[in-house]
Amino acid sequence: MKFDNKSHDKELQQEREQASEKMCSTIEVAIIEPSQPHPVLPAAKHSPANANDEEVGEELFIPPLNFAIVDNGIFRSGFPDLPNFSFLQSLSLRSIIYLCPEPYPEANMEFLKANGIRLYQFGIEGAKEPFVNIPEDTIREALKVVIDARNHPLLIHCKRGKHRTGCLVGCLRKLQRWCLTSVFDEYQRFAAAKARISDQRFMELFDASTFKHLPMSFSCSKRTRARYLHPDFCHPI
Amino acid sequence: MKFDNKSHDKELQQEREQASEKMCSTIEVAIIEPSQPHPVLPAAKHSPANANDEEVGEELFIPPLNFAIVDNGIFRSGFPDLPNFSFLQSLSLRSIIYLCPEPYPEANMEFLKANGIRLYQFGIEGAKEPFVNIPEDTIREALKVVIDARNHPLLIHCKRGKHRTGCLVGCLRKLQRWCLTSVFDEYQRFAAAKARISDQRFMELFDASTFKHLPMSFSCSKRTRARYLHPDFCHPI
Repeated sequence: MKFDNKSHDKELQQEREQASEKMCSTIEVAIIEPSQPHPVLPAAKHSPANANDEEVGEELFIPPLNFAIVDNGIFRSGFPDLPNFSFLQSLSLRSIIYLCPEPYPEANMEFLKANGIRLYQFGIEGAKEPFVNIPEDTIREALKVVIDARNHPLLIHCKRGKHRTGCLVGCLRKLQRWCLTSVFDEYQRFAAAKARISDQRFMELFDASTFKHLPMSFSCSKRTRARYLHPDFCHPI
Repeated sequence: MKFDNKSHDKELQQEREQASEKMCSTIEVAIIEPSQPHPVLPAAKHSPANANDEEVGEELFIPPLNFAIVDNGIFRSGFPDLPNFSFLQSLSLRSIIYLCPEPYPEANMEFLKANGIRLYQFGIEGAKEPFVNIPEDTIREALKVVIDARNHPLLIHCKRGKHRTGCLVGCLRKLQRWCLTSVFDEYQRFAAAKARISDQRFMELFDASTFKHLPMSFSCSKRTRARYLHPDFCHPI
């Protein structure tokens, strides 16, 4: 196990100290080089009940509830638990943004340590309407972590991946200049029956112009066709 | 305007002729080289109503209803319309899989032609329960197109991006060895109140083992951390 890119870590350290000491607590862990194999965790085995399925005996992946891809190198989900670790491991995560004030569970902390994943905790209370008060400054600090590619691949999660995660992703979409209808469409897809007017108002009023100098377009749109022709991706039938 | 990679096109042509003449109709269009700028289409301008927003006058992106990223180079959505073309253009699409039997609208066809996007049409009827009958062979042929990286970036869509698109994506997840709970979680997120038991049964019974020889794991998980450190992606605050 080695520490990679010391100057990068030093820079990150300074930024964190300057900007977000109170609203974000960061857990430092050893960084494992990408080329090194991940330490083996107990794999989440799952035998499909379907008799037609010939994959019996093979490992199935169990993504966390409400898991989805936000953009290249950015994922979202509900709270990951032991059965999800094997899937998360396959994402080669570099960081996790955790949006709840409660301490991170011991098992999850062990997973982070074993896999060299840095935890950024922004403790946003999970209040219910009409007492929802999303702290704008905290979302702003979290957004800085999200758009810093040095933290990617990155997973954003709260408890159920609906409200706090939904607001943060919605603000990212504003940076990416998505129209509000599409921001809300995405938010509601995850929040479903629990969608909150107050969250949507927060996203609507969020002023993304302070991030304007950053080139954070929807990064999937930056890729050229040629990049998908890598032979390792998959092969023709 | 040039035709890129003739041998590749020839191969694709042969495959299509052999495998899926009846269930898939393919529209051939001129291919534009990635390095060439896209022809300019009427941009979908949208002035935000929010007075705090300093982006007034700048173009906002309008993704289609139910738009999401499925995996690297694979997107899904409801039927894209004129206001969405500007956003779709930014994805540099190479192909579209259209899952309805109705003819593709003239305006959409023009968009494809102008942007060198190949259309794969698989005409699956949009029946309602209890008369839903997803044709397995057609889904299988569509899946071959989905996992062929030479077709990426690719957009899958039907009418509302719920049922036909949901079934195809669900079968892709089975190939990627997602457990059924996660496959259904994702399907239901898009189908919402319109979720169908028959679609879920179809996905459950779909035998993905015939695709077993193909390395179609969840491709986001194949990426190493180092690949996210590209300086063009975004910059630290």
